[in-house]
Amino acid sequence: MRAVPTTAYVLFLLRWVVISTLIGGLAGTASAIFLVSLDWVTHWRETHLVLIALLPVAGFFIGLAYHLFGNQVVRGNNLILDEIHAPRQLIPLRLVPLVLGGTLLTHLFGGSAGREGTAVQMGGALADQLTRLLKLRPRDRRLLLIAGISAGFASVFGTPLAGAVFGLEVFLLGSMRYDALLPSFLAAVSADFVTRAWGVGHTHYPQLASLPITPLTILYALIAGVLFGLVARSFAALVHRISQLFGRIAYAPLRPVLGGVLVAASVWALGTTRYIGLGVPVIVEAFHLSLSPADFALKLLLTALTLGCGFKGGEVTPLFFIGATLGSALAGVVPLPVALLAGMGFVGVFAGAANTPIACTLMGLELFGVQAGVYLALACVVAYLFSGHTGIYSAQQIGQAKHLRFGRQQGSRLGDL
Amino acid sequence: MRAVPTTAYVLFLLRWVVISTLIGGLAGTASAIFLVSLDWVTHWRETHLVLIALLPVAGFFIGLAYHLFGNQVVRGNNLILDEIHAPRQLIPLRLVPLVLGGTLLTHLFGGSAGREGTAVQMGGALADQLTRLLKLRPRDRRLLLIAGISAGFASVFGTPLAGAVFGLEVFLLGSMRYDALLPSFLAAVSADFVTRAWGVGHTHYPQLASLPITPLTILYALIAGVLFGLVARSFAALVHRISQLFGRIAYAPLRPVLGGVLVAASVWALGTTRYIGLGVPVIVEAFHLSLSPADFALKLLLTALTLGCGFKGGEVTPLFFIGATLGSALAGVVPLPVALLAGMGFVGVFAGAANTPIACTLMGLELFGVQAGVYLALACVVAYLFSGHTGIYSAQQIGQAKHLRFGRQQGSRLGDL
Repeated sequence: MRAVPTTAYVLFLLRWVVISTLIGGLAGTASAIFLVSLDWVTHWRETHLVLIALLPVAGFFIGLAYHLFGNQVVRGNNLILDEIHAPRQLIPLRLVPLVLGGTLLTHLFGGSAGREGTAVQMGGALADQLTRLLKLRPRDRRLLLIAGISAGFASVFGTPLAGAVFGLEVFLLGSMRYDALLPSFLAAVSADFVTRAWGVGHTHYPQLASLPITPLTILYALIAGVLFGLVARSFAALVHRISQLFGRIAYAPLRPVLGGVLVAASVWALGTTRYIGLGVPVIVEAFHLSLSPADFALKLLLTALTLGCGFKGGEVTPLFFIGATLGSALAGVVPLPVALLAGMGFVGVFAGAANTPIACTLMGLELFGVQAGVYLALACVVAYLFSGHTGIYSAQQIGQAKHLRFGRQQGSRLGDL
Repeated sequence: MRAVPTTAYVLFLLRWVVISTLIGGLAGTASAIFLVSLDWVTHWRETHLVLIALLPVAGFFIGLAYHLFGNQVVRGNNLILDEIHAPRQLIPLRLVPLVLGGTLLTHLFGGSAGREGTAVQMGGALADQLTRLLKLRPRDRRLLLIAGISAGFASVFGTPLAGAVFGLEVFLLGSMRYDALLPSFLAAVSADFVTRAWGVGHTHYPQLASLPITPLTILYALIAGVLFGLVARSFAALVHRISQLFGRIAYAPLRPVLGGVLVAASVWALGTTRYIGLGVPVIVEAFHLSLSPADFALKLLLTALTLGCGFKGGEVTPLFFIGATLGSALAGVVPLPVALLAGMGFVGVFAGAANTPIACTLMGLELFGVQAGVYLALACVVAYLFSGHTGIYSAQQIGQAKHLRFGRQQGSRLGDL
């Protein structure tokens, strides 16, 4: 053992223990505030349903705020991914109040959205403030942004291992680089610790029972995985398409007004709030009884509409909803236990839409236990394959093509295909 | 959704369901035969200790067999990794009887070795026989070899997820590519299924209890991780050094004769068989009481000697032994539970020595449950960092440097540094 390399690693470790702890403190605290507020606005909406009629008004204010102050940050998650690939400028701190306020208004007035986008953007933007403070060089800033994503994801879902790997996996499709391995794991663990230390808990999902593996159960799992991947792809395509359509409205603040009218009218026509907000109660329901296919389809449409027109939040919790209810509905035709299919859909659709199969496998293990690990992993891996070169993050670069036939697309951003 | 890409993915899926099932059948059956034989020779040795005196003779026959018939395959794991990077020729089927026989003789006569090398080499070599049979193109053969490694690893340890990721992670240090994702997972799952279907079970390790995360427990985990990484590095360095020293003996079959004399004499002097063979009972013991540091040190020396002089087997189970007993010994000074430290060492030292942190994290979750997942992951990640650009596989290429200071080493093989 030569002394020099070990010293370099010791310095690297010490440096990132300090920086990642700071990231964890910032992102974890932001996630705690966000989760508590989100609980509060969700509860307030469910007890004051008239608020949903005001969704177009809320949309106008969100659109106006971004129009006036948010030109630089309206690309959200994609802004952070772009900065990882090609650094241009510090991520403005104003991203934090804009995305936090926008998400809370979206949920208070009945949009269908998630929370990972918000947590990841807050994590990335807060982390990036350390760049100036600590005078970090560009190569360190890259690791810092990745660790910020990991911290935001880990703390908002209470899944530190999935969060750590999500940050490493999300910016490049088809490959993972380990230079940010230690920073991401440290930031994810400390952010999750900080959120929990603020007394904020997470949803408990059922632990999946072991199901003996047979060639037939594996075959069913593969079929389910294909469907999860195709639905993930449809979701991504629909959000992009809706977003393009709304782009025809020249004055941006009017886009969520129209979208808000459509979403609020749908809620009124459906006569239920089942498909708006995070939808956590329905996700839990999906593990216990086989739901109707209408559940996943309606959630998919309303979420694509909400996010495509300019409301804020994230795609991930709705994707959990879509996947879990799709899996649950499949239990009517695929002879696997309903809880298992719901769990597989939960992580599988998300793996396909975000192109993060290893993070989603880890998330499955963290949330549902290891007993059904093989089924969860196969759902993620197959869904990842079948979503093709599409996804919810247009700034994600293709590090390695999913199929040799599309090898020429390597190096492109998903949004540029 | 365009129709063409989905068709391409469907064909890819069908193709690899067939190929991976064949790989799984071959590798899983080979692992089953191997594990049953290994149990038998271990039991026979422990009831006929006089066999250990014949270790030098066994060494001569192993050395002679490889000298006469095994020139092409003596590089073992590294041959398979080299073929993944730069295909030259089919892996000769004779590798299978040579490594299987060599490993069984090593264990029967009291060498200190493992089994993953044997299983991985059998998996890779058997898979490669399909190359000719199915007339696979070079780009498919690459995926086939990776899937063969995954299948061998998964079936010999009963950990399909860790096996799948191990195959993906082991040939490139510091990065993971996903082109073999589906083939690896399918081959790992089916090989594990086949081994179990033959009625062959695996060691059950204790499920680790949850330990509340605090800044102090994380600090202890990081310190332990550093030690695991440094020990992994020492082990790899020692095996290479011993191997170089024995290389001075011109006639190769005499190398394991001398090594066998030294190992057998050590066993006689120590008066115990505690440090030879796989050592599974001691690994289990390490979870229950804090062992002496002598355990890890003696196992490290005897394994490095056994493998460095030319006996066969693998490094991984001895690394589990070294890590678990080192963790267990640390419980005397580091205030974490002994079972937790043993589990962290089990996966951590191996993660450092093989440079496979994600596979080892998954292995920890599969063997010890998710409750202590954060500690297991941190042990793997930190040990990975601190083993530096060293490791037990000299044909492993550096895909991404662990530290920017060593960026120039990217693209080199570990053995060429």
